[in-house]
Amino acid sequence: MTSNRPLGVAVIGAGYWGPNLVRNFQGSASFQLRWLCDLDRSRAERVVGRYSTVRVSVDLDEVLADPEVDAVAIATPAGTHMQVALAALRAGKHVLVEKPLAVTVAEAEELVREAESRGLTLMCDHTFCYTPVVAQIRDLIHSGDLGDIMWVDSIRINLGLVQRDIDVIWDLAPHDLAVLDFIMPEGVVPVSVSAVGRDPIDAGHSCLAYLTLNLSNGAIAHINVNWLSPVKVRSFTVGGSKRTLVWDDMNPMYRLNIFDRGVDITSDEDLGVEEKRNRLISYRSGDMIAPALQEREALQAMVEEYAHAIRTGTPPKTDGRSGVRVLRILEAASASLAENGALKMVEL
Amino acid sequence: MTSNRPLGVAVIGAGYWGPNLVRNFQGSASFQLRWLCDLDRSRAERVVGRYSTVRVSVDLDEVLADPEVDAVAIATPAGTHMQVALAALRAGKHVLVEKPLAVTVAEAEELVREAESRGLTLMCDHTFCYTPVVAQIRDLIHSGDLGDIMWVDSIRINLGLVQRDIDVIWDLAPHDLAVLDFIMPEGVVPVSVSAVGRDPIDAGHSCLAYLTLNLSNGAIAHINVNWLSPVKVRSFTVGGSKRTLVWDDMNPMYRLNIFDRGVDITSDEDLGVEEKRNRLISYRSGDMIAPALQEREALQAMVEEYAHAIRTGTPPKTDGRSGVRVLRILEAASASLAENGALKMVEL
Amino acid sequence: MTSNRPLGVAVIGAGYWGPNLVRNFQGSASFQLRWLCDLDRSRAERVVGRYSTVRVSVDLDEVLADPEVDAVAIATPAGTHMQVALAALRAGKHVLVEKPLAVTVAEAEELVREAESRGLTLMCDHTFCYTPVVAQIRDLIHSGDLGDIMWVDSIRINLGLVQRDIDVIWDLAPHDLAVLDFIMPEGVVPVSVSAVGRDPIDAGHSCLAYLTLNLSNGAIAHINVNWLSPVKVRSFTVGGSKRTLVWDDMNPMYRLNIFDRGVDITSDEDLGVEEKRNRLISYRSGDMIAPALQEREALQAMVEEYAHAIRTGTPPKTDGRSGVRVLRILEAASASLAENGALKMVEL
Amino acid sequence: MTSNRPLGVAVIGAGYWGPNLVRNFQGSASFQLRWLCDLDRSRAERVVGRYSTVRVSVDLDEVLADPEVDAVAIATPAGTHMQVALAALRAGKHVLVEKPLAVTVAEAEELVREAESRGLTLMCDHTFCYTPVVAQIRDLIHSGDLGDIMWVDSIRINLGLVQRDIDVIWDLAPHDLAVLDFIMPEGVVPVSVSAVGRDPIDAGHSCLAYLTLNLSNGAIAHINVNWLSPVKVRSFTVGGSKRTLVWDDMNPMYRLNIFDRGVDITSDEDLGVEEKRNRLISYRSGDMIAPALQEREALQAMVEEYAHAIRTGTPPKTDGRSGVRVLRILEAASASLAENGALKMVEL
Repeated sequence: MTSNRPLGVAVIGAGYWGPNLVRNFQGSASFQLRWLCDLDRSRAERVVGRYSTVRVSVDLDEVLADPEVDAVAIATPAGTHMQVALAALRAGKHVLVEKPLAVTVAEAEELVREAESRGLTLMCDHTFCYTPVVAQIRDLIHSGDLGDIMWVDSIRINLGLVQRDIDVIWDLAPHDLAVLDFIMPEGVVPVSVSAVGRDPIDAGHSCLAYLTLNLSNGAIAHINVNWLSPVKVRSFTVGGSKRTLVWDDMNPMYRLNIFDRGVDITSDEDLGVEEKRNRLISYRSGDMIAPALQEREALQAMVEEYAHAIRTGTPPKTDGRSGVRVLRILEAASASLAENGALKMVEL
Repeated sequence: MTSNRPLGVAVIGAGYWGPNLVRNFQGSASFQLRWLCDLDRSRAERVVGRYSTVRVSVDLDEVLADPEVDAVAIATPAGTHMQVALAALRAGKHVLVEKPLAVTVAEAEELVREAESRGLTLMCDHTFCYTPVVAQIRDLIHSGDLGDIMWVDSIRINLGLVQRDIDVIWDLAPHDLAVLDFIMPEGVVPVSVSAVGRDPIDAGHSCLAYLTLNLSNGAIAHINVNWLSPVKVRSFTVGGSKRTLVWDDMNPMYRLNIFDRGVDITSDEDLGVEEKRNRLISYRSGDMIAPALQEREALQAMVEEYAHAIRTGTPPKTDGRSGVRVLRILEAASASLAENGALKMVEL
Repeated sequence: MTSNRPLGVAVIGAGYWGPNLVRNFQGSASFQLRWLCDLDRSRAERVVGRYSTVRVSVDLDEVLADPEVDAVAIATPAGTHMQVALAALRAGKHVLVEKPLAVTVAEAEELVREAESRGLTLMCDHTFCYTPVVAQIRDLIHSGDLGDIMWVDSIRINLGLVQRDIDVIWDLAPHDLAVLDFIMPEGVVPVSVSAVGRDPIDAGHSCLAYLTLNLSNGAIAHINVNWLSPVKVRSFTVGGSKRTLVWDDMNPMYRLNIFDRGVDITSDEDLGVEEKRNRLISYRSGDMIAPALQEREALQAMVEEYAHAIRTGTPPKTDGRSGVRVLRILEAASASLAENGALKMVEL
Repeated sequence: MTSNRPLGVAVIGAGYWGPNLVRNFQGSASFQLRWLCDLDRSRAERVVGRYSTVRVSVDLDEVLADPEVDAVAIATPAGTHMQVALAALRAGKHVLVEKPLAVTVAEAEELVREAESRGLTLMCDHTFCYTPVVAQIRDLIHSGDLGDIMWVDSIRINLGLVQRDIDVIWDLAPHDLAVLDFIMPEGVVPVSVSAVGRDPIDAGHSCLAYLTLNLSNGAIAHINVNWLSPVKVRSFTVGGSKRTLVWDDMNPMYRLNIFDRGVDITSDEDLGVEEKRNRLISYRSGDMIAPALQEREALQAMVEEYAHAIRTGTPPKTDGRSGVRVLRILEAASASLAENGALKMVEL
């Protein structure tokens, strides 16, 4: 493929997320948006608008048959991701899928195999991984500035749209799990998970839930997701042995806060038991730094990463395998939820 | 006992909490502070100060032998509560004990039996139960304004003093558990608890922990306590079927927030399964009210409640039995913590 | 004009504000966007995008000659508003102008005369007047819920784009002055103004300024505008004799705060001087209410108001006359600024 | 005077501020508190409490006649400061006076002369100058870290006690003026002031006011004081050519915020007029740092400074002359207020 012309792309799905993809593909010089496809033609027409030259279709086959279409972006309901993505891959198209990649690990793995065997790009739209703040968090962790990771706490709650087909864990936790997958140091992965939830409004599945992940380095990661909270909180904390950072996404002025505050304990290995018990606890009370962050739309960066992955044939930052890892945790969390929090192993 | 003269009182323990008790007993017309007792005389002398007529003693027996002492207030380390309180009760003194009431349920129950058999007041200093905001929360719940209690979420985290003798659950969660005990509707009690924690600084016990309580009405109460957070959060949310309240103790201007925002689902009992799945979800997006709250020191109200309980012989709001209930949950939480979150029953 | 077909509209100016107008006219069923006109064709083409059927022109005359164009929306630099608007009116087009309506009162009055003599709509895009929060503020004042207006304080500061052609007062204060014009009770108008400013970065005109307006009812309105503040503040307070409201536009959750808190003084007319001095001051410390506000884009409502004004021939909420009133205050403020805060009368 | 024994001190005035002085002198090893003097004996007795050995008096002469009294601290109504302080100085006592030092410049100067001629310490209790945050602000300015001072903006508003004898400027602005006096670089002083105010509740004097100070280096300092605001704001901003700091006293976690954000303009002196107009404006968008601040009660530091000044015979940081400077500005502000904001010169 030559890099001289824009990649032809089709967006599949004109619901909640599709319009964002349409807007960002239109804004990218790397792509030429050729189709918006949705079973509901009028919905698709509303999304492209009265002034657009982008074609609308209700027929996926028609879209996939278009040789000008190099790549697709799928924003259909989660339950259909597998089928649509598979059809696209088999038609030789590169595929970007909205999170979650599929609704089972088995399906997701089949997609990965299909893409790899065909040499096509399979990418998962874990949007937050393309925000400037998450990029900086990853740098802070990988550079060692935070020290060892000791604990992670994420709160993602608000009065949210109660989904009909998936519970609050499958709706909201993929964001946290994808970010966690992206930022953690090499080799630090979840090894088991426990989840509890409640459905107090009789929606048919959990509307609020707590996930506890045990990480391979002994750290804990705790995630609170909730559709019923009247207050919107987006807070993601990473406690390190040297520093602790808080990403407060509701605070545009201080979105990232890096605290040089913590507790140190003198650790002299030669101390006896009694001495160890009495060793000095000291408190660091250093500065807080809120670094300047680029203002950049994450979706635009994601779209460019997709183009780059296609052109170079290298895996994108959030490739199909990362989507599979997120799904493994979601499946284990669902199993735990069904047993009221029983600990479930995760194999990553 | 006549109500004409102030009650003679002795404070036992001049450490972290004792000075607050000293100050508030001195400020109360219901009491005459007679002694401050501590094993470290100079510490006690520093607390009463160079200008005070209050006597200092290192000898508990001397204090308990004083017939002018009607009541004691105990703010010694938790491990000594039992022994000091028992001595005081046996000397015929009314007893107020800082939380936790004792370090085992068995000890606490012995104190309750001893006090009841002697007709003496036994009170637990669950200070938050005497704040105006908690009084109002209790009213909102008991009046039915919140509707059915669906979920409770408390966050009590900050860069805290790492205790040597107790873990973060025993240090901080008693506040949340006492408030929960105080505000819940009649008959709604914890029936089981799960707890996980971490000690990433090698302090000898958990420095951060998550508790999940299953309540008898099906609701969930989740508590996050943490000594290592550089950010101080004191947030206590009660989600009801009609309204949701958030007590944000770090925000003096909007300390209590009552939201008329939530999710309703049409519940027509005659619907078939398919209809039920498709029934209407509607979102209430009403006003938020931050009620005016009295500015009043909680400890002053607590001290007056102690006087009232002594004079009338009626149990105080936070009596020994409430202290026992809190301990039952703490013990179950510790058992769960030791088994990495295994669910433990609580018998209240 | 029949109301059966959409109004043909052309947007003039593809700089900072033009794209917002383009997007909102495209989203309105009341309009058919026919042209985007800008002296820089490539800029206009970028704004409509590669996928649009909207025509682009660098020639205003060509656009005004199009009989399908019923109305224009002008978002060119302030200094050109007069000339472009006059040409449009003379071509028989309805006119919407970005704030400020013109750069002198004389020019603005000429536009008003021209529009009125031709029976055309002349509207000023005072966008904030179309936000749900300002609508509610107006209702609270006009219903008497706030009581008499005693003071207004607005802070509009952030690290802003330093304009080359206008100072910070002309750039930012029109927002505050237009809102003030819109919400005040009948008959309460500014009668004089004082302004001071500074240009500490040598930009050629004031980069920060304070305006003090004396209102006809004796109240004061104070406005702080600043391009150099690293903190972004958008706070607008109206102090009334009964209640006080704070519009905090940076706080989406509590955007409008209505406080039933204040100071009352017993006012018995029969008191003597000495008694009056000693009369009772009492403090109300009532609830704060943050009302639920519709989430609605202001520009969409503005665009529909434009359509409604054109179709019915009635003046829009922010008509040319309101634009003239804002300009009268800006001119007086500039005169005061030049004399370091000397008080200048305003004739409204 | 030997430094071996504590200084004998008497507090005069047991109203709003006196109890704070009593508490802090009692807590200082440098002082021995001997008397609390108030015309209302029962009020003084309530302040020292039932347990105190500190003597109470209603007779100033009795207190001043006590040879054990080396120093006094005056917290009587402002109108009596002059008379009480003068009596104390004439009795050979060192004097600390609550702000304002007196109610006229002439009175304050007489106190300064009296103290200097007798070799006694005269100190003004400008408490904020002894906070860790103001100490750090002074360092940041004097070290040059902020660059040239360009603007200062202070907001000190809340639902405050409406004073009977003084207006809101005399009640609240002394804090801001004293801090300004303390932190400004050598030679940067107010040269003129304008003040406007309102009394919408008919209290007899201004309940809200705005002060504008022109500084000798061309900078502006603006102060907003208000007793009627339901929201409490304590915000003090210093805009410098290199950095800008915001002291937000209502935010204990981020009390001091130092922003490396601002606007720079290329200033090539060789540019012609036209080039200058077109020179590059660039925006710095660097980090924000919230430095760790000591937690220390300001009054305790102030009391120790008083002891140090007495023992060494050196002027305290906030000596009588600083009190005079603050009064000069207050007098000029009052004169301006009476003429609705007319500019008044200040001679410092």
